[in-house]
Amino acid sequence: MNPTMASRTALFPADPATRARAAELYAAVADKPIISPHGHVAPGLLADNEPFTDPAALLLSHDHYVTRLLHAGGVCLEALGVGGADFDPRSAWRLLAAHWHRFAGTASGYWLEREFEDLFGIVDELGPENADEVYDRIDAALQRTEFRPRALFDRFRIAVLATTDDPLDDLDDHARLARDGAVSGRVVPTFRPDAYLDPESLGFATRVHRLIEAAGGGRADFGSYLRALEARRAHFIARGAVSADHGVVEPYTTRLDADAAERLFQGALRGELDAGSAREFRGHMLWQMARMSVQDGLVMTIHAGVHRNHSTVTHGRFGPDSGSDIPTRVEYVRNLHALLESFGLVRDFHLVLFTIDETAFSREIAPLAGFYPSVYIGAPWWFIDAPDAIARFRAATVETAGFYRSSGFIDDTRAFLSIPARHDMARRSDAAFLARLVEEGRVRPARAQRIMQDLVDAIPREVFKL
Amino acid sequence: MNPTMASRTALFPADPATRARAAELYAAVADKPIISPHGHVAPGLLADNEPFTDPAALLLSHDHYVTRLLHAGGVCLEALGVGGADFDPRSAWRLLAAHWHRFAGTASGYWLEREFEDLFGIVDELGPENADEVYDRIDAALQRTEFRPRALFDRFRIAVLATTDDPLDDLDDHARLARDGAVSGRVVPTFRPDAYLDPESLGFATRVHRLIEAAGGGRADFGSYLRALEARRAHFIARGAVSADHGVVEPYTTRLDADAAERLFQGALRGELDAGSAREFRGHMLWQMARMSVQDGLVMTIHAGVHRNHSTVTHGRFGPDSGSDIPTRVEYVRNLHALLESFGLVRDFHLVLFTIDETAFSREIAPLAGFYPSVYIGAPWWFIDAPDAIARFRAATVETAGFYRSSGFIDDTRAFLSIPARHDMARRSDAAFLARLVEEGRVRPARAQRIMQDLVDAIPREVFKL
Amino acid sequence: MNPTMASRTALFPADPATRARAAELYAAVADKPIISPHGHVAPGLLADNEPFTDPAALLLSHDHYVTRLLHAGGVCLEALGVGGADFDPRSAWRLLAAHWHRFAGTASGYWLEREFEDLFGIVDELGPENADEVYDRIDAALQRTEFRPRALFDRFRIAVLATTDDPLDDLDDHARLARDGAVSGRVVPTFRPDAYLDPESLGFATRVHRLIEAAGGGRADFGSYLRALEARRAHFIARGAVSADHGVVEPYTTRLDADAAERLFQGALRGELDAGSAREFRGHMLWQMARMSVQDGLVMTIHAGVHRNHSTVTHGRFGPDSGSDIPTRVEYVRNLHALLESFGLVRDFHLVLFTIDETAFSREIAPLAGFYPSVYIGAPWWFIDAPDAIARFRAATVETAGFYRSSGFIDDTRAFLSIPARHDMARRSDAAFLARLVEEGRVRPARAQRIMQDLVDAIPREVFKL
Repeated sequence: MNPTMASRTALFPADPATRARAAELYAAVADKPIISPHGHVAPGLLADNEPFTDPAALLLSHDHYVTRLLHAGGVCLEALGVGGADFDPRSAWRLLAAHWHRFAGTASGYWLEREFEDLFGIVDELGPENADEVYDRIDAALQRTEFRPRALFDRFRIAVLATTDDPLDDLDDHARLARDGAVSGRVVPTFRPDAYLDPESLGFATRVHRLIEAAGGGRADFGSYLRALEARRAHFIARGAVSADHGVVEPYTTRLDADAAERLFQGALRGELDAGSAREFRGHMLWQMARMSVQDGLVMTIHAGVHRNHSTVTHGRFGPDSGSDIPTRVEYVRNLHALLESFGLVRDFHLVLFTIDETAFSREIAPLAGFYPSVYIGAPWWFIDAPDAIARFRAATVETAGFYRSSGFIDDTRAFLSIPARHDMARRSDAAFLARLVEEGRVRPARAQRIMQDLVDAIPREVFKL
Repeated sequence: MNPTMASRTALFPADPATRARAAELYAAVADKPIISPHGHVAPGLLADNEPFTDPAALLLSHDHYVTRLLHAGGVCLEALGVGGADFDPRSAWRLLAAHWHRFAGTASGYWLEREFEDLFGIVDELGPENADEVYDRIDAALQRTEFRPRALFDRFRIAVLATTDDPLDDLDDHARLARDGAVSGRVVPTFRPDAYLDPESLGFATRVHRLIEAAGGGRADFGSYLRALEARRAHFIARGAVSADHGVVEPYTTRLDADAAERLFQGALRGELDAGSAREFRGHMLWQMARMSVQDGLVMTIHAGVHRNHSTVTHGRFGPDSGSDIPTRVEYVRNLHALLESFGLVRDFHLVLFTIDETAFSREIAPLAGFYPSVYIGAPWWFIDAPDAIARFRAATVETAGFYRSSGFIDDTRAFLSIPARHDMARRSDAAFLARLVEEGRVRPARAQRIMQDLVDAIPREVFKL
Repeated sequence: MNPTMASRTALFPADPATRARAAELYAAVADKPIISPHGHVAPGLLADNEPFTDPAALLLSHDHYVTRLLHAGGVCLEALGVGGADFDPRSAWRLLAAHWHRFAGTASGYWLEREFEDLFGIVDELGPENADEVYDRIDAALQRTEFRPRALFDRFRIAVLATTDDPLDDLDDHARLARDGAVSGRVVPTFRPDAYLDPESLGFATRVHRLIEAAGGGRADFGSYLRALEARRAHFIARGAVSADHGVVEPYTTRLDADAAERLFQGALRGELDAGSAREFRGHMLWQMARMSVQDGLVMTIHAGVHRNHSTVTHGRFGPDSGSDIPTRVEYVRNLHALLESFGLVRDFHLVLFTIDETAFSREIAPLAGFYPSVYIGAPWWFIDAPDAIARFRAATVETAGFYRSSGFIDDTRAFLSIPARHDMARRSDAAFLARLVEEGRVRPARAQRIMQDLVDAIPREVFKL
């Protein structure tokens, strides 16, 4: 990498003393390996190691952070290749260039600029006049072996990369990668069972029957359902998984007795649960997931509070992850009460709470993580993994719970090329925050150095049991 | 204008490099014409062009931002001339001066100081010892023709000023102003139908009957009601209106079939709706307003989440806008779902979402505006159109949705003289924010210059179809 | 006190001009007497004036801010002496030292460091290698008479210290202290009747019967219950109380007629109220407390929105205040409507609203306090009485309501030794905030000086009627 002068101090506060301090803190971790314990890179990308086809497919079509803002600006998603439509990559690229002003100040824009510069040596701002030139330059680079996925993986110094996988996935790509030893870091799967736990998700019954089938079959009762889930978790653990991830609108949890659970389960299979009963079932299954995590050691992560596919028209045409997922309010204190009463004090149970509702950081998550040994503060996620939001996150949580109850950064990305830019952004943002605390006499310089190191290594390793 | 040294850098960050950058960004827009697409100046003020009677009536009595804080400090609203009571202007002014310390750090105090200095050349701080002198100085100025409303309008370089008007208003003042060509900018009405859409507002049935009468009369059914609303909107458009504004506590929307709507409408006219049905009716009418906006092109603005007239005693004695309107929580994601499902993707439909509940900015409004081409992020409004709040607003929205999904500043004011001070404050605050991004290497200097220009011109013109 | 170079500018912004301004503002109030109008120091501590037994009991075991974060880090509460368990103070101290990194950046860590340095001259960072040395040094100091509670009280220059007391407390410790004249400042009780107002609190009926008994006995009806509460308030006032404090989850208020109140009261005594009726009763009693405050002049303070004893296991083993109290959302606008309709405009009624849900500051509390003469904005409390949170609090409230509608700082602490550190932190944080406003041309330097003075003296004296 060959950063320009401007980017060398990027994201550091303007005050000269604080900037110098931030630069010093950052320098010590700038080149540390990346630990990415939660994300959405397809394992097949690395297993197959095919060259990327073109700049648009690589940097644009599959990054719904980027396509959504173009869509808001009036661009058709078809023209960008969203949802697998046939499209002309160069025309799509020109659309990105024509609308590039829309990305000024955004996190997505920042990451893309870092990628342009750090990976392709492009320092001029993208725009209509250089769209083709930039396209050609990236396209040419993609032909070279050093831009194949595995080569980039190593160049990015990725120590751990977690993918996110369906419980019934055979995880063969992971097995292949582990066998090959083809990349220098670990690639581990993550158990993500949402669609198997929510009676209101389309195809729930079919999916559950398939799950029970995969675990040896037999009568579909609540016991066999739980055993099947446990069996799939065991399969994931055998393939290297360290965590199970749960995407829920509301993180409600409840403990039910066996009869009530069985009744709800049978109702769910028949598609007969009303909204209240479906909520009870989901709430109990989240409790069960915690119980299983206590048993098998998988770190439990909760990503709560997103209204998925807000535009049903867009979802219908382009499928999920087409840009209309919108955050909503999250409440963790009452919703998690049943779960934490049962497991909150259990040694070695790890529960990482993520939110896009920033109000939960100082009010709920930091206080919970400042008491329960099991609870960790998830890093800002999705819409809020950006420099100002990270500063707000640290300011909202550190005064209550310090640095050592937070999870370390997660990039949560589908955009493989953005991984280094995102982690670099997080490191710079944390350095900026720590530098301010040092300059304000609130953290000693040596302590800040140590925290900085721990944030990129010891902390994620501890939280995610790596 | 002849700003003192201190005011020249007002609102810019203290860091010298950032301050210089902010000053440079600001300088390029400091004298640009004002676009005020939402506010509450009475059109008669300009149509009549009478001299202002006295400093208190001009700067104090009608500015409920100011009178409310004096009231909180123990001053009687009567003594300030609120609600049209007889009062002694000089005594009222002395009360303001005696309580001037209460305004330190407030947005209202800042605007008044700017008006004192920029319009009347008063640089000393107001206080009991100079209350009479300041009063006399302003009073003397008000006698001069250059302090008549139209002269000030031109001096303020107002390019567009939107008023807010009752659907049954004949808009004759607007017609006169347009005929006269008496001011150099456009003065346009805004359609504000709240009282005609809410079955729980006092006098709803009478008002609706009058509305239907005005549109030609006939049987009062849901169809004639909708047609009457459409006819009034057409009248407003003929008089220059570009937007329809909706003040609701909860921005709930729902699509109903014709029968259900008719049933609710008849119940509403009879005053027989329970709370739930009244909510359904309001929710459907907000959906209908969107439908009409799609049809007739009026920009739809929603100002949600204010508990009006919290003190019924104060409201009873002094009427509306007497200071006890208090913000409450707002939820936009679920509430707008029905509306956005129907119209969110329609080309040329513009929906601007305002909030005083700041938590909605990063969690709901920026994500919605970052996907739906119809949705724009309304500028901070009312209690939060102040420097720190504007900084928080930009920080909460730009990283997700950039600058080009925001509405541009609205002053929302009844206080005519405060218009330049408010827009100047917004420009300085945006310059300060942009300057920080430039210094932190997140926006390029030339790009920031362009954004700064667009924020005061191209953006409000696009959003409000001006 | 002999602050090191680093601590001299602690908490001031890094920008040199702002820092110098903050230092100047702070210097004028650094040594002003402390007014502590709300806290939890046991009055017996001063009445008995016994030496502190050891460093751990003094600084660790009773400070649930500190023990909770150690608990989150995996330390057993028993080992720290929480809940009165037998424990080894030196071992507990070593645990604190071993986990000291967890406190970096926290408010608790900052206060402890200030205490180490300012009271015991310890400037090196605590850690495993110096744990015993620090322990011994503090332990030795505690033997000396100048470290007895009364001597420290005088050394801390405490002008007023409010304790928090049970309505049936005889307040003999307060009487003794007043008689003795043993400390140079006032020590006043605070009436805290929560357990006597909430039908769902354990032992409610017994407690109410005891209350009525204490006030002369007779039939337990709603009238005698109210009279008994009034009598106890009178007793508190006779012993110097200036305020009544109310800790509620939800600040709901409602006005009931005599029959409804009597019915609920009898149901409450029989333990027969369902959740809805219990809420009505609590809501009416909060209204009654306001009515009594109007009558007897006690300032009414509300600390709302904490889910107490979230971990019932921890509560069962270690009692209340063992660390698992977690904040939740608060709503003040609708909940307080009935109370403010009745008493909001009454002269000399003072109502101070506290919140840990920071979203309420700009949305609800500042707007309420900017209109109702009775309402004051409570200072950031508990999890949010920390430098960054204080900056957010001021930024969220001052632009709407100025400085003179806020309460002044409250330390709310059980940790006697932390009182000066906490007030010093608040003064520094306010100086930092004011300095920024001055440097940004928003508050004049002389005005800022005056505000700074008023924040530590005139304002708390006015708000708490001292």
